[in-house]
Amino acid sequence: MNETKNIQKIILPEPTLRRLPWYLAYVKMLDNQNIEYVSSTQIAKEINVDASQIAKDLSFLNIKGKTRIGYEVHSLVRELVDFLGFKRKHRAFMIGVGSLGAALMQDVGLAQYGLNIVAGFDINEDIAGKSICGVPIYHMNELKSRQEEYGVSIAVLAVPVEHAQDAANQAIAGGLKAIWNFTPYRIKAPTNIVIQNTSIYSHLALMYNRMDDMNNK
Amino acid sequence: MNETKNIQKIILPEPTLRRLPWYLAYVKMLDNQNIEYVSSTQIAKEINVDASQIAKDLSFLNIKGKTRIGYEVHSLVRELVDFLGFKRKHRAFMIGVGSLGAALMQDVGLAQYGLNIVAGFDINEDIAGKSICGVPIYHMNELKSRQEEYGVSIAVLAVPVEHAQDAANQAIAGGLKAIWNFTPYRIKAPTNIVIQNTSIYSHLALMYNRMDDMNNK
Repeated sequence: MNETKNIQKIILPEPTLRRLPWYLAYVKMLDNQNIEYVSSTQIAKEINVDASQIAKDLSFLNIKGKTRIGYEVHSLVRELVDFLGFKRKHRAFMIGVGSLGAALMQDVGLAQYGLNIVAGFDINEDIAGKSICGVPIYHMNELKSRQEEYGVSIAVLAVPVEHAQDAANQAIAGGLKAIWNFTPYRIKAPTNIVIQNTSIYSHLALMYNRMDDMNNK
Repeated sequence: MNETKNIQKIILPEPTLRRLPWYLAYVKMLDNQNIEYVSSTQIAKEINVDASQIAKDLSFLNIKGKTRIGYEVHSLVRELVDFLGFKRKHRAFMIGVGSLGAALMQDVGLAQYGLNIVAGFDINEDIAGKSICGVPIYHMNELKSRQEEYGVSIAVLAVPVEHAQDAANQAIAGGLKAIWNFTPYRIKAPTNIVIQNTSIYSHLALMYNRMDDMNNK
C-alpha cells in the first residue's frame, strides 16, 4: 500500500499553526450563533491578524473563501478541527500527579481537544494506587509495562524540575514518542521524540514584567 | 520622591525573558544539590542555548560570572527569582471556575511563582457562593465591588471561548490591569492592559502536528 497516497501531509510554518486555533475559536463562536459566512476581513478585525495573512494561512489547508461571501463558517470549523487533530483521540499518560498534574487530570477541556489521559504515574507511594476522576495512578516503575498494556504515545510531564529529565528518560525508555512538558526544565531527548514545552509559570514572568513596564510609563 | 531612582527598570527583549525561567529551573536544581558554581558553558550544555547567549542574557540583569569559576549558583537563583517577580505576591481573580479554572485554583504551584488567587468568579449560580481550597467564589456581577474590596490587578481568564471578550471587558471595567488569558480567543483590550496568552489547547495542536510529521518520516 502506498502510504503517501493516503496521508496528504501538509507541512505548515509554526506561526501559521499557532494562529489556526485562534481562527477556530472565533469561527466556532460564530457557528454557535448560526452565522453562515465570514470574511477574512471580519476575522482579521476580531483577532488582530492581517486579512491577507488569514487567507494565506487558510489556503495551506486548501480552504478558500468565495468572492464577496467569504468562508462557509460550518465547514471552516470542521476543516480546522480536523486539521488540528482535535477530533482524533490521543491517549496520554500523566507523569507526576502532584498539584498541577492532578489539576490537569481533572480538566475535561483536554479531552475536548483530543487528549485522553488514561493513567497517571507518580513516585509517591501515597499517590500510586489511587485514582482521579476514575483514571488510575500507578507507580513510576510500572511505566514501561503499562505503556505496553495501554499503547499510548504521549507523556504529559508535570513533575518537580529536578526530576524532569529523569522522568522524561523513563518515558522515552518506556516507548513514549512525545512529551508535553509543563516543567520549566529544558529536556534533552533524541531528535525523533517530540517535545512540546508549555511552561505556564514562565508566562507569569512575562506578564509580571509587562505589568512593571506599564506601571513605569 | 523621584521614582526613577528607586525603580531601576530593565527593559528586556522577550526572547531573553522567555529563557530566564529555564536558567532558573536549572540553577535551582544545582542549588538544591549544594553545587556552588556553574559556568555558562555548563548551563549551555544542559539546556541547549549558546553559552554566549546565556552570558548576554544574564548581563542584562547585571549578573556577571567570574573567569574560570563561573556564576555563584545561590546568588544566581536569588537574582533570577527576584528579577522574574516570583518572590513578590501578585493577587489575582480567577474568572470562570469551570473545569480548567477550578483546576488552576487548586494548583499550589502558582503561589510558588508569586500568583495568589484570592477569589473566583462565575456566572453559574451553582458555583457562585462555594469555595475551592478556601478561596471564595462570587457571582460575576460582584466583580467590580470585589475588586474595590480586594484591590487585585490580575484576572486569570478561563471562561468558555464565547464569553472570553465579555468577561475580559467586565474585568477591565472592574479596574483589573492584566489578563492571563487561558482561552484560545484573541481578546481586544486598550493598550494599557497587559494580555498574556497561554492557550494550552493550542499547544496540543502543535504537538499533534509534529507527531504526524515524525510518523511520516
